[in-house]
Amino acid sequence: MSFTTGNKYKITLFGTSHGDCIGCTIEGIPEGLEIDFEKIDTEMKRRKPQGTLTTKRKETDNYDIISGVLDEICDGSPLTCVIPNTDAIFSDYNKDIPRPGHADYAANIKYNGYNDYRGGGFFSGRMTAPLVFAGAVAKQILEKKGIYVYSHILSVKDSKEASFSDLDCNTIINRLREIKTYPFPCLEKEKEFINIIKENSPDSVGGVCEIMVLGVPVGVGEPFFDSIESTLSKLFFSVPGIKGVEFGDGFKITELTGSVANDCPHYIKDEITFLSNHSGGINGGLANGMPIICRVAVRPTPSVSIEQETVDLEKGENTKITVHGRHDRAIILRIAPVMEAVTAMGILDLL
Amino acid sequence: MSFTTGNKYKITLFGTSHGDCIGCTIEGIPEGLEIDFEKIDTEMKRRKPQGTLTTKRKETDNYDIISGVLDEICDGSPLTCVIPNTDAIFSDYNKDIPRPGHADYAANIKYNGYNDYRGGGFFSGRMTAPLVFAGAVAKQILEKKGIYVYSHILSVKDSKEASFSDLDCNTIINRLREIKTYPFPCLEKEKEFINIIKENSPDSVGGVCEIMVLGVPVGVGEPFFDSIESTLSKLFFSVPGIKGVEFGDGFKITELTGSVANDCPHYIKDEITFLSNHSGGINGGLANGMPIICRVAVRPTPSVSIEQETVDLEKGENTKITVHGRHDRAIILRIAPVMEAVTAMGILDLL
Amino acid sequence: MSFTTGNKYKITLFGTSHGDCIGCTIEGIPEGLEIDFEKIDTEMKRRKPQGTLTTKRKETDNYDIISGVLDEICDGSPLTCVIPNTDAIFSDYNKDIPRPGHADYAANIKYNGYNDYRGGGFFSGRMTAPLVFAGAVAKQILEKKGIYVYSHILSVKDSKEASFSDLDCNTIINRLREIKTYPFPCLEKEKEFINIIKENSPDSVGGVCEIMVLGVPVGVGEPFFDSIESTLSKLFFSVPGIKGVEFGDGFKITELTGSVANDCPHYIKDEITFLSNHSGGINGGLANGMPIICRVAVRPTPSVSIEQETVDLEKGENTKITVHGRHDRAIILRIAPVMEAVTAMGILDLL
Amino acid sequence: MSFTTGNKYKITLFGTSHGDCIGCTIEGIPEGLEIDFEKIDTEMKRRKPQGTLTTKRKETDNYDIISGVLDEICDGSPLTCVIPNTDAIFSDYNKDIPRPGHADYAANIKYNGYNDYRGGGFFSGRMTAPLVFAGAVAKQILEKKGIYVYSHILSVKDSKEASFSDLDCNTIINRLREIKTYPFPCLEKEKEFINIIKENSPDSVGGVCEIMVLGVPVGVGEPFFDSIESTLSKLFFSVPGIKGVEFGDGFKITELTGSVANDCPHYIKDEITFLSNHSGGINGGLANGMPIICRVAVRPTPSVSIEQETVDLEKGENTKITVHGRHDRAIILRIAPVMEAVTAMGILDLL
Repeated sequence: MSFTTGNKYKITLFGTSHGDCIGCTIEGIPEGLEIDFEKIDTEMKRRKPQGTLTTKRKETDNYDIISGVLDEICDGSPLTCVIPNTDAIFSDYNKDIPRPGHADYAANIKYNGYNDYRGGGFFSGRMTAPLVFAGAVAKQILEKKGIYVYSHILSVKDSKEASFSDLDCNTIINRLREIKTYPFPCLEKEKEFINIIKENSPDSVGGVCEIMVLGVPVGVGEPFFDSIESTLSKLFFSVPGIKGVEFGDGFKITELTGSVANDCPHYIKDEITFLSNHSGGINGGLANGMPIICRVAVRPTPSVSIEQETVDLEKGENTKITVHGRHDRAIILRIAPVMEAVTAMGILDLL
Repeated sequence: MSFTTGNKYKITLFGTSHGDCIGCTIEGIPEGLEIDFEKIDTEMKRRKPQGTLTTKRKETDNYDIISGVLDEICDGSPLTCVIPNTDAIFSDYNKDIPRPGHADYAANIKYNGYNDYRGGGFFSGRMTAPLVFAGAVAKQILEKKGIYVYSHILSVKDSKEASFSDLDCNTIINRLREIKTYPFPCLEKEKEFINIIKENSPDSVGGVCEIMVLGVPVGVGEPFFDSIESTLSKLFFSVPGIKGVEFGDGFKITELTGSVANDCPHYIKDEITFLSNHSGGINGGLANGMPIICRVAVRPTPSVSIEQETVDLEKGENTKITVHGRHDRAIILRIAPVMEAVTAMGILDLL
Repeated sequence: MSFTTGNKYKITLFGTSHGDCIGCTIEGIPEGLEIDFEKIDTEMKRRKPQGTLTTKRKETDNYDIISGVLDEICDGSPLTCVIPNTDAIFSDYNKDIPRPGHADYAANIKYNGYNDYRGGGFFSGRMTAPLVFAGAVAKQILEKKGIYVYSHILSVKDSKEASFSDLDCNTIINRLREIKTYPFPCLEKEKEFINIIKENSPDSVGGVCEIMVLGVPVGVGEPFFDSIESTLSKLFFSVPGIKGVEFGDGFKITELTGSVANDCPHYIKDEITFLSNHSGGINGGLANGMPIICRVAVRPTPSVSIEQETVDLEKGENTKITVHGRHDRAIILRIAPVMEAVTAMGILDLL
Repeated sequence: MSFTTGNKYKITLFGTSHGDCIGCTIEGIPEGLEIDFEKIDTEMKRRKPQGTLTTKRKETDNYDIISGVLDEICDGSPLTCVIPNTDAIFSDYNKDIPRPGHADYAANIKYNGYNDYRGGGFFSGRMTAPLVFAGAVAKQILEKKGIYVYSHILSVKDSKEASFSDLDCNTIINRLREIKTYPFPCLEKEKEFINIIKENSPDSVGGVCEIMVLGVPVGVGEPFFDSIESTLSKLFFSVPGIKGVEFGDGFKITELTGSVANDCPHYIKDEITFLSNHSGGINGGLANGMPIICRVAVRPTPSVSIEQETVDLEKGENTKITVHGRHDRAIILRIAPVMEAVTAMGILDLL
């Protein structure tokens, strides 16, 4: 059952890109939680289409909470959040002509043509809006426990800014705090990244998003199938467009020798810390107390207004398609709040 | 419950590195399956310590099947496989002095010191032996459905051989077939890889393992949380030492533009194929019919006979440790059958 | 996570008795299903408050389907059904004075007073409305496979009508078909049952509901924890007010000897049937092809307009309560469609 | 996957009646638990075949713990318990001639004849031995939290002794303490029950087993699908031969009026108790602090040395069978420790 995830903090997604609404039901919010809706709104706004570089679809992303809250306070029962689709358009899509790079073809075969094909239906990136909602609630629960999730755009195409691994935590937090006024969560290269996107137009670009979690107690995570890496990667890869996930040094760690790659524990007074963080704060699937650092590869947005090869499933012949419409030129610009959201969901589920 | 995974093909692991045995219970083997034990033995042997480059611990990895099979045929009930530990040594390990790069420290905190700490206990790479068993059974079930899993060592340290993405499937299969006589599954650079390992001794090295699955029907996988990527990455990251996972072009896809990264469907006669495979055979979490290609980053083996910093948890002070003993110098050499195993388990669970 | 049940046909409930709405999200509806909404409406109407014997609360139980359906046809994604509460009243309930026989006291302790206490909140019998919806869909899926679920009120207080076990299936089906025009699903004693309810007013009464399933293929069900009895009883006991469940002869079977209680298989021409059905169509947790017959004990409605002892949790002293309001005098009258619903959900989940 | 149950305390069963062994793997035992094996042995002995009234099969029911314990203390990893079958006989059973009252016929169809049919294979009551083991461990964990599980044989055939509901808890506990020296857990009618069994020989008899749990904190249990009743009934019905389950007054409560059936909360000094316990300690699926009381109907043992009708599946014709062999005449005599075991497992899973 692929629309549900989590054990202690369980999410069920529903809706489609151009149906009446999208939404989610969340089980596991502690009773008595007073949700800070301003914070929720901030997260929703970060993900929302904005400016000219992202999709031109105009969605308010207003949400209705139809269950789980009594007098502004969570009542221990499932919270259902409904986000109406206000700018849905039906005419843009042809069921029989799959858009390259999308789920269209595989979904058509899987669901015998019955799936909602409009804008990707339930495969659409629009489904990340309820994820951001659920993650924003998770973040609030985590923050009460002293656990914080951060992210930034590490690279766009071949341009890269400083990694969380290269900076100390306070510097990172301070820079990210300033970002709030910017449209996009970059530590230093916002303008350059925007230029790259513009230069490549009408083609699209991808990039890498980096996430950091501070405050996870030592020992959180489980051996094997519920390791922190297993839990987070399952969630990361459920977000449309993610093609790679790495923790700590990730693929680069394969070029080190063991004695260099090992992070050595070390007492500073009575506190244990580590002399390095190649493993991204995780040993044996468990938090070791260092910052948890991971990165996800976001493919370039598949919708591009450039003529491409495809097939006509009804006619059984090759054809061409130019995807007109209101699509993102760079999902990477809006992915950070989604990644923070699923990270928060995953960590909360392991506590 | 982190020792259990899967829905339709469910595995429960048990045991520790230096306890009486390790093993697994498998639910979901179709009744009537006649297991080909020769094939199982081949897989077990591929993972087994061998030669001088891997651990010097001598384990026969013989297994007893104590349930689930009647007259050589699976009876529809759970199959339990027990692998005795025959070369366990207790004296090598000190509970209070965590080995750098291992789960020792985090596990000690998590389990209040009660976890079996000898050789990593249930965090040990030795736990991959029952995974290989379970995967070898899964492979047989898949092969009856025309689905085949392949792998090779793509790189060791900074030396890399050809990727599955660069070769056609028949070439790959033929080369891999020849490999059977070699100790290690490399397409072309076996000697070079072995030299690198020797040159770095007594330090250890890591590498990248690449996996390919052929024959997965279009549409297999589920949207969101049970996507092929989510399912496989959860399993990959449950294997000790994996720090990165990518599908198709993976992190490299972030440097392409959308029109290049998109794989375009194309009729050749009545059959649909794709003009490229940047997405590694997966769109929207579903198989699109192309080869499924993924890579995992294997960190250098953390056990190295080189003095390293660590702590003495009992005394509460810094100390040093040199991990003597019989450890692997390059887990990467034995990881391929493990990765094939968990891949088979994951794909089978999605069918 | 107690608001979610099922594996292949998965339901998540949400809402509270006097909140904005109640509802459910259903995963596992086969894509392409064209829901017969007239049938759904019939089931919803059977459960709805009606006449003077059941609750005086006036709920239309109209529902909105906000996801999962495209052009009247199920699209393979989760279906979310929202049932607005139109006749909610807030003033009737006092959080600190638990009503005897209700969950009020235990829930207050469990949720530290944060649970929605109005009318039982999410413990309310009103939550059975989305269950009936989900079950009505399940019934349609089952009927396409030739599986049919029936029920009747077997007893009210100490008055009992004929059991399904005493009649042949055709007679039962014919009588039940006639019932459709009656308010309540009794085979023969409708008037007597109604008289008993009236005579006991303002006190409430309980009864036994009997369920029969025809057409379940031999072998459906699983050994041990997913036996038909385990699956159905878990669902039955999740319905508020159920205190007993039995299959076949149930508790009476304990008074028979083995040779009498055993149902003997028997060929009639090429077909195997059984010479009796003491086991209610289930052996070893599996369907044996005979009608599946079970009964549930429905306690008398706890809300009664009679003064009863209780406590004042705020003052910490004993007090009395008379539950005024619009409550059912006999939930048993409306329980049959609920029991059919959860039965359908359970059987569908096992197919 | 029907051989696995539980979330926080998870059991996986394996083995068959006449295979090499039976056993279980348990996840969720707290690390640091020092198992009291004497207590385990007592429980195993209570379930074991004994005397002339139960099966003549001689099983030592000795068990090997092959994982999860280090130096007598649980290490936080799964505990696997293996119970060898030492008195298995293969010649007694004919795959094609199903024994009436057993799963034989339905299982043969379900598993296409591949299931281990000898003595019921994995449907056998012998599978309750690992359940008793897992429950005996659960009981020890519960007892450290002040939670105790008791049971007795309430009735055999039509003879009934006093119910737990009729006696005060101290009297019950004292009487049960004395029982330890008797073979069978009856409060008062041991001799009468034994006589009934003897009088009915070679036919078999059934009965009712009653279970009581003391010390469950108020609020334990969850609304709807994880109610205490749902959780326990699922486990009860997974035990071979159970055909009915009731809580508190059970089916009898349907004959009361609401004002009588309601249990009224009442302060005695600062403590809340209830003036009656018709609901068996459970409201809305949650513990209310009163003793949890439930009863299960145990069908007469289906194996009887009396000629009965059956079919020959190979020949496709009717035939007769007399089940010779070493079967129980009254499973009810050995069921109490099994019921205590699954009750303990269920309650522990809800804590």
